[in-house]
Amino acid sequence: MSETFVLTLKCPDRIGIVSAVSSFLAEHGCWITEAHHHSDAGDGVFFMRQEIRADSMPENVAGFEAEFSTIAQRFGMEWKLTDRRRPKRVCLLVSKFDHCLADILYRWRNGEFHIEISSIISNHPDCEEHARAADLEYIHLPMTKENKQEAFAELGKLLESQDPELIVLARFMQIMPPDLCAKYSNQIINIHHGFLPSFSGAKPYHAANDHGVKLIGATSHYVTEELDAGPIIEQDVIRVDHAHTVKDMVALGRDVERLVLSRGVKYHLEDRLIVHNNKTVVFN
Amino acid sequence: MSETFVLTLKCPDRIGIVSAVSSFLAEHGCWITEAHHHSDAGDGVFFMRQEIRADSMPENVAGFEAEFSTIAQRFGMEWKLTDRRRPKRVCLLVSKFDHCLADILYRWRNGEFHIEISSIISNHPDCEEHARAADLEYIHLPMTKENKQEAFAELGKLLESQDPELIVLARFMQIMPPDLCAKYSNQIINIHHGFLPSFSGAKPYHAANDHGVKLIGATSHYVTEELDAGPIIEQDVIRVDHAHTVKDMVALGRDVERLVLSRGVKYHLEDRLIVHNNKTVVFN
Amino acid sequence: MSETFVLTLKCPDRIGIVSAVSSFLAEHGCWITEAHHHSDAGDGVFFMRQEIRADSMPENVAGFEAEFSTIAQRFGMEWKLTDRRRPKRVCLLVSKFDHCLADILYRWRNGEFHIEISSIISNHPDCEEHARAADLEYIHLPMTKENKQEAFAELGKLLESQDPELIVLARFMQIMPPDLCAKYSNQIINIHHGFLPSFSGAKPYHAANDHGVKLIGATSHYVTEELDAGPIIEQDVIRVDHAHTVKDMVALGRDVERLVLSRGVKYHLEDRLIVHNNKTVVFN
Amino acid sequence: MSETFVLTLKCPDRIGIVSAVSSFLAEHGCWITEAHHHSDAGDGVFFMRQEIRADSMPENVAGFEAEFSTIAQRFGMEWKLTDRRRPKRVCLLVSKFDHCLADILYRWRNGEFHIEISSIISNHPDCEEHARAADLEYIHLPMTKENKQEAFAELGKLLESQDPELIVLARFMQIMPPDLCAKYSNQIINIHHGFLPSFSGAKPYHAANDHGVKLIGATSHYVTEELDAGPIIEQDVIRVDHAHTVKDMVALGRDVERLVLSRGVKYHLEDRLIVHNNKTVVFN
Repeated sequence: MSETFVLTLKCPDRIGIVSAVSSFLAEHGCWITEAHHHSDAGDGVFFMRQEIRADSMPENVAGFEAEFSTIAQRFGMEWKLTDRRRPKRVCLLVSKFDHCLADILYRWRNGEFHIEISSIISNHPDCEEHARAADLEYIHLPMTKENKQEAFAELGKLLESQDPELIVLARFMQIMPPDLCAKYSNQIINIHHGFLPSFSGAKPYHAANDHGVKLIGATSHYVTEELDAGPIIEQDVIRVDHAHTVKDMVALGRDVERLVLSRGVKYHLEDRLIVHNNKTVVFN
Repeated sequence: MSETFVLTLKCPDRIGIVSAVSSFLAEHGCWITEAHHHSDAGDGVFFMRQEIRADSMPENVAGFEAEFSTIAQRFGMEWKLTDRRRPKRVCLLVSKFDHCLADILYRWRNGEFHIEISSIISNHPDCEEHARAADLEYIHLPMTKENKQEAFAELGKLLESQDPELIVLARFMQIMPPDLCAKYSNQIINIHHGFLPSFSGAKPYHAANDHGVKLIGATSHYVTEELDAGPIIEQDVIRVDHAHTVKDMVALGRDVERLVLSRGVKYHLEDRLIVHNNKTVVFN
Repeated sequence: MSETFVLTLKCPDRIGIVSAVSSFLAEHGCWITEAHHHSDAGDGVFFMRQEIRADSMPENVAGFEAEFSTIAQRFGMEWKLTDRRRPKRVCLLVSKFDHCLADILYRWRNGEFHIEISSIISNHPDCEEHARAADLEYIHLPMTKENKQEAFAELGKLLESQDPELIVLARFMQIMPPDLCAKYSNQIINIHHGFLPSFSGAKPYHAANDHGVKLIGATSHYVTEELDAGPIIEQDVIRVDHAHTVKDMVALGRDVERLVLSRGVKYHLEDRLIVHNNKTVVFN
Repeated sequence: MSETFVLTLKCPDRIGIVSAVSSFLAEHGCWITEAHHHSDAGDGVFFMRQEIRADSMPENVAGFEAEFSTIAQRFGMEWKLTDRRRPKRVCLLVSKFDHCLADILYRWRNGEFHIEISSIISNHPDCEEHARAADLEYIHLPMTKENKQEAFAELGKLLESQDPELIVLARFMQIMPPDLCAKYSNQIINIHHGFLPSFSGAKPYHAANDHGVKLIGATSHYVTEELDAGPIIEQDVIRVDHAHTVKDMVALGRDVERLVLSRGVKYHLEDRLIVHNNKTVVFN
């Protein structure tokens, strides 16, 4: 946990934004511990993230936000203020493979992820033991070709009731329906076990092996309606050679996948991500 | 230069190949300095590379080869024996960008590449100074939409007369016609400034930027008729973020491209590459 | 688990070794799935690893070994034949931090490590829950300045009775006494959270931070009497910058440490390591 | 070349710095294209870099600077304003090896480095051809055990007359005397062919090979009186294994050295480096 507030914003770029924001913060006694800006020269858009010591924030946060709205309106900002001391509610969706799930639960237990896990939902029973060991609710939601629509309707209701701020597809292996993608826009992070845009869709390691690539990779991204085409958050690769079989790639890939997903989740949890034009600004 | 011979082969896998080859080498007094094998379990193919101290080779190399043919026939081998003391003839094809060319010439001058450069051929005059400084022939072969067929016919004749063992497309930026691809099969190495199979074709850095990828890459590969789809030899990547423009990627990419191309060229020059089923075995 | 036998050897280099070994294997019908050689030109030593399909091995393995001894004697070989179908007995030593332990247990449970864990031994009670969840014996062996000698004598007895083939110091944070180092020579693997030989000893992340290095690393190595100076098995690094505090480095370091240790353990388990002159040959 | 000014500063951290600076810049119509801050919580020091479009700067730069001094004084800032349109004067010092020199000259010619090279100075004649090809002055300053003091006195005079803003030791292989280190504090960048603090001093690749490390590296750093112990600017590594000889490491190392040096030089040229307590803040 970090004893800070985070202010993130984006707006059309022009002279005076930093001055207005930083003067506002200074006038309110805010002690900045970390600050990032980015100007996208092509689009003319400005992005900012400010991390503020919680003990330097005004007691009346609602009043602070109301005042800031005036600046925000003047510059046409989309903005958000988050209290990092409060854990974010997260729902984890998995299928059969448990390496990403285990990694997330490990980081949660050791305090690296400051979250409250609403439940683990899966179309398979395989990962239930992880839930039991961690004293978390495990919801088994079987999915077949026939019941897919009902199952996703049920999933929608579960999410509705749990109201997660982040949904992590930790190798969920199912395509999220458009209505859920839209409802939880920029709130669903998926790990794809391929170096996107290469090898989107099913069986990326088979495809990588067929192509004889010399590096295999993984990609964490926000989920949008178009499969594996949402804003990329993080990617990494690992070297392979002619001696690696698909099975070897699957094993090596596990180590990359869990790191790439956990880094993506971490950036989201710390409000380091701003989405613009199907791309991410990552302030880390 | 290495004072060695290299024996490379591939054949259907079965028991006794290594025994037969290594006994043959031992009987002829060959001192092995480096040895690699690979069994492709899926295809049932066996690959081998043996590096032999030149001073341990029989004086009568032709006789040695004739004797080895018997073994080769028995096991159905495709094989090759190369004297690494003899420089390979290489022809360099470039367009306007000179970073890959400069890198290759540098490695040639400092002895890292043991080659004889037959000429530098380009559709542009831009790189001529490199040729002059190195006292090499620079052949300017202008190419327009209209004269492309004649230009490539002319290129074909030039190559015919120079008889290169390796043709390096050091950012040549032109698509080789099918007849040249076929004639110089596994003898033309191209550098593609993208992480294939992503971003094949033109303007890969623009495509990478549009997709918001977090790593950009380069790929060296043998050229086949299908654009950017030949056997991949080597790949590498470099990290980028939201602040990198296409222009930044182009600059960063130069460092990856020249390394990836030069590694690919080196593997070829040292007979470390065996092509099978549009993939490469790299014995390094 | 791999359905194979592994033959590893080292001996003075000379002509005919590969021929003798591979002919022996061929005559006994051994099907080689993977083979590696290395000649150390400086020391004049030859190293080899052969992986053989178990179903192609003679039924009488003892007889096979006896016959091979003749060759081994002729060439002055140190050699070993291992049946990879049999799990290796491993003892895990930990202190308070559990990230390396958790990673090893995960790889054991998912079958990546084919081992039998004799026990988890620790000078602290912190990691006991991991043992309970995995139904393993957890031996708490408190260590103080005063009782260190007795505690290590007790540890020696425990190891004696468990007879492990590999002892993993998964962040054990205690210096192994010379007698145990000698008794389990090349059988104890430690993870050091620094890029050796830099930052040996205590608090390597503090030292890295003091020096303002731009990459931090981890090293897995065999334990010898001299602290953090045994044969290096595997190393890796991760990028840091001026904004990373020691605490950040500790968190980032966890991901490198567990990967570097698990790779080292894997190489040992698969008999891919041969030690020579305080260095390792890694056939992977 | 970038059509910008760069403002860098450091001062004791307190509330209101960013506000004061950014308000000043906004009032003067400055268009910020890139901005970085860093607060060192341990030392209580604040660092900032602002890149400003040149066409948005007041015409009277001297007046602008005079006004800014008032703010600077109030906060106790060390600061600097640089016009990136003006090339920096650079002096290159080399010995026999030319790979780093060639790389720097290449980046200068292709516009990546916006510099004016005052001369190339060397204690050996080996690199003279590079100077001739680039139409640069090459000053051969032979150095022997006996004449070292006189030679460095002569070097001091040459530097005095050339007045370089940056001195690059592109594998100069000589130890700079304390008076020159002091005079050109934070203006001399050296490339060390080892991963500092490991393997400082002579023959780092021999030391790396003796230790059997699995990664070798290079370090660019500012030169201080203590050998290889000045503020580290950039580091990188490359993987090696048991089969790499010292000679192989030297060859591989060339690729890392030139990249690590050129990145360091680039950061300096673009005023991305602020030194504090023998460490660097790198705003890139």
